[in-house]
Amino acid sequence: MFTFEYVDFSTTSQEIRNCLATEDFQRLATTLRGLELGQLIEQFEALKIADAAILYRMLDKDRSLELFQNLDAPVQAELIKTLQQATVVEAFAALEPADRVSLLDELPATVATRLLAGLDKQQRQATGVLLGYRDSSAGRGMTTQFISTHPELTVGQVLNCITPQLNATEHCHLIMVVDRTRRFIGAVRLADLLGQPQDLLISNIAFEIPTAQASEPDTEAARRALERHLDLMPVLDNEGRLIGVLPLGEAIDLLEDAEELRTARSAGSEPLYRPYLGTPLRKLVRARVVWLLVLAVGATLTVQVLATFEQTLESMVVLSLFIPLIVGIGGNTGNQAATTVTRALAMGDVRVSDLGRVMFREVRIGAMLGLCLGAIGFLIASVVFELEVGMIIGMTLVALCSIAAAVGGAMPIIGKFFKADPAVFSNPFISTFVDAAGLIVYLSVAVLVLGR
Amino acid sequence: MFTFEYVDFSTTSQEIRNCLATEDFQRLATTLRGLELGQLIEQFEALKIADAAILYRMLDKDRSLELFQNLDAPVQAELIKTLQQATVVEAFAALEPADRVSLLDELPATVATRLLAGLDKQQRQATGVLLGYRDSSAGRGMTTQFISTHPELTVGQVLNCITPQLNATEHCHLIMVVDRTRRFIGAVRLADLLGQPQDLLISNIAFEIPTAQASEPDTEAARRALERHLDLMPVLDNEGRLIGVLPLGEAIDLLEDAEELRTARSAGSEPLYRPYLGTPLRKLVRARVVWLLVLAVGATLTVQVLATFEQTLESMVVLSLFIPLIVGIGGNTGNQAATTVTRALAMGDVRVSDLGRVMFREVRIGAMLGLCLGAIGFLIASVVFELEVGMIIGMTLVALCSIAAAVGGAMPIIGKFFKADPAVFSNPFISTFVDAAGLIVYLSVAVLVLGR
Repeated sequence: MFTFEYVDFSTTSQEIRNCLATEDFQRLATTLRGLELGQLIEQFEALKIADAAILYRMLDKDRSLELFQNLDAPVQAELIKTLQQATVVEAFAALEPADRVSLLDELPATVATRLLAGLDKQQRQATGVLLGYRDSSAGRGMTTQFISTHPELTVGQVLNCITPQLNATEHCHLIMVVDRTRRFIGAVRLADLLGQPQDLLISNIAFEIPTAQASEPDTEAARRALERHLDLMPVLDNEGRLIGVLPLGEAIDLLEDAEELRTARSAGSEPLYRPYLGTPLRKLVRARVVWLLVLAVGATLTVQVLATFEQTLESMVVLSLFIPLIVGIGGNTGNQAATTVTRALAMGDVRVSDLGRVMFREVRIGAMLGLCLGAIGFLIASVVFELEVGMIIGMTLVALCSIAAAVGGAMPIIGKFFKADPAVFSNPFISTFVDAAGLIVYLSVAVLVLGR
Repeated sequence: MFTFEYVDFSTTSQEIRNCLATEDFQRLATTLRGLELGQLIEQFEALKIADAAILYRMLDKDRSLELFQNLDAPVQAELIKTLQQATVVEAFAALEPADRVSLLDELPATVATRLLAGLDKQQRQATGVLLGYRDSSAGRGMTTQFISTHPELTVGQVLNCITPQLNATEHCHLIMVVDRTRRFIGAVRLADLLGQPQDLLISNIAFEIPTAQASEPDTEAARRALERHLDLMPVLDNEGRLIGVLPLGEAIDLLEDAEELRTARSAGSEPLYRPYLGTPLRKLVRARVVWLLVLAVGATLTVQVLATFEQTLESMVVLSLFIPLIVGIGGNTGNQAATTVTRALAMGDVRVSDLGRVMFREVRIGAMLGLCLGAIGFLIASVVFELEVGMIIGMTLVALCSIAAAVGGAMPIIGKFFKADPAVFSNPFISTFVDAAGLIVYLSVAVLVLGR
């Protein structure tokens, strides 16, 4: 049990007004935590509604639910309307995203659904700041365009009750089933309702479906929805209460955008999100130039490596003829491994903890590929040039393919560990690292074989 | 008007039996085309049902519909059952795919839907040979798990009529509306039926939706379904008759598999279609080694180019230090352009006929990127090495970036023209071509600047 020390109304009131005026939300939250529910309601009622809405949003989840339930219905409605207003949203939008997430507790499910009900996608996006979920979380992407019902009702009751909503609701193939506290139980198909006896209980035909957490990344939820072909994925808050749904169509669009970003990034450019022929040239240049420069700066590493071995190159200029071949084969081997592992990560076949296993597999695969290519390289280079060149090429390819495959396989996993998109992270790193590594191996082998 | 010459029953009968025995479907089709409907029926009835089924499938679409309509219901049912049998399917499966498509006319919509009704995915795939559509066409991927109705019925009539089917039909959010000859008219939402007055005509609430042609590639149909978020895409034959549907879930899987293939191929390996960690090493090696060899063979071009310029390299070994840098920047520039254009092709923003426009755009973009990189390269190389080196690097980058962007942008379009997957086609070609071109430009510029 907490014991609250006696807090004077007018002192507290002054403190709250000060916090609001200076937008010191951190101090406001602390002040509010020191108040009992009764005092809180007093303070809430004494404020102008726009200020009251900000105060309201700073409460912890439990207390914000308690306070909401203690308000009269018209005041509840006014509070919801005020929370949707630009001035209130902007106050929170001005916070740093990280502060916002740590400062704003999840909204209670009843309040969240009422806040979002009837808003279109754009308005939802704007109001999303108030929800207490990160950008690009499932809670931000969800909609409230769905129909829900309760397990203890009969099929007949439900059909009567939902029929008026059907025309206005886009996503109604699946009806969500929740208990009286909005806790998610399962779903029923609209089609199944029609075929059933009128007095059957909903609890008898509700079935489980995969769900999403409001706080999880929206692309993860979307990928699960696509894999399971789920028309409508319920989005739950951290108490398992239904606050929205992710329709399959929106899941498709989310992944489509993520894919555009990934494809563009993995080739070292920024996504356009608009038709190619209609995009001005300078925008296309801008989307590419930064990455091109980054990759070019990375590539200067190869110049430095080669400069170190300049003497070796001078003593046997024929070695320089194979530089692009060696670098290219290393890059291709690394790329193959990276692509396979990136896909395996996306599919959930490989986890971050599998790093060791993956690298051990890839070293062996790389060695086998290297033996194969090295043998051919040795034969051709020995015949066309000289035996020493053949030996250098052959040995380099065995060593390089092993290294490149292991590094290529490891990069996406390391990228994932640092929460970078594996595909994006791997590409520039592999090309820079493997190019330089390939040259070091090549010329070290040459020094070894030539003895100079 | 055609006049048929008099054809003797027993001679023809002997001819047909010969064709069937030797599996000479070409001659069978010609023989059948010479018969009138009455004669055709006589011949059909004189054969064992397995032979009759093969004869039946060799008819042109119109005549196969006429013949079918002239059969008694039990004979129709037996024919359908026989067409589904392995022996009949195998006779056609033995044909070359191209012959099959040219020899087998589309089946009439009524026959096609009856043929597929009740078959599961695996059986559908097996029987698909009989449909007269290419592998990987929408007609092959469709299912017949859907509900259809007619425009002149009332909402009440339709609800009565479809209710018993709802539980057994997986895809019933959208009800297809067809006329009495199965010509596709539109669709109604199941949810909309419930909210409407019982005596409203279906024609009043049916709406248009995007459709697929049975003969078009399944991935094209699937992409359209995903873009439009269409739960159920109707698949029509070339007379606009409804023969099946492509559910959104299957469209998702189709594109997922296509994506796996493309990702793997664009990195130069074969897709695994199975979990990475569970795949034996030799399978992984096999998926990669062929492409790696192909790319390596392509890369020997660079050795030849460099061998041509061996004297220049010998006279100024410092030039060889920049080889990987130059090759890398060319590859990156080409890749950026290829990725952007590949995506634009997939999205339908760019067509094959835009080749000239795309190349003109990309040359200019490449020149701008080249000027930017070239200026930086000139400055650094002049300071660190010598003025001549800086000039060579700078001029090379301007020329190379223009070429690489134009080639990179053109490759996916050329690939598409030859009906190769743009992403797959571009990658090995760009890397090989741009690597070699980069070296030619680099060393030609060097010869020019150095005068030797």
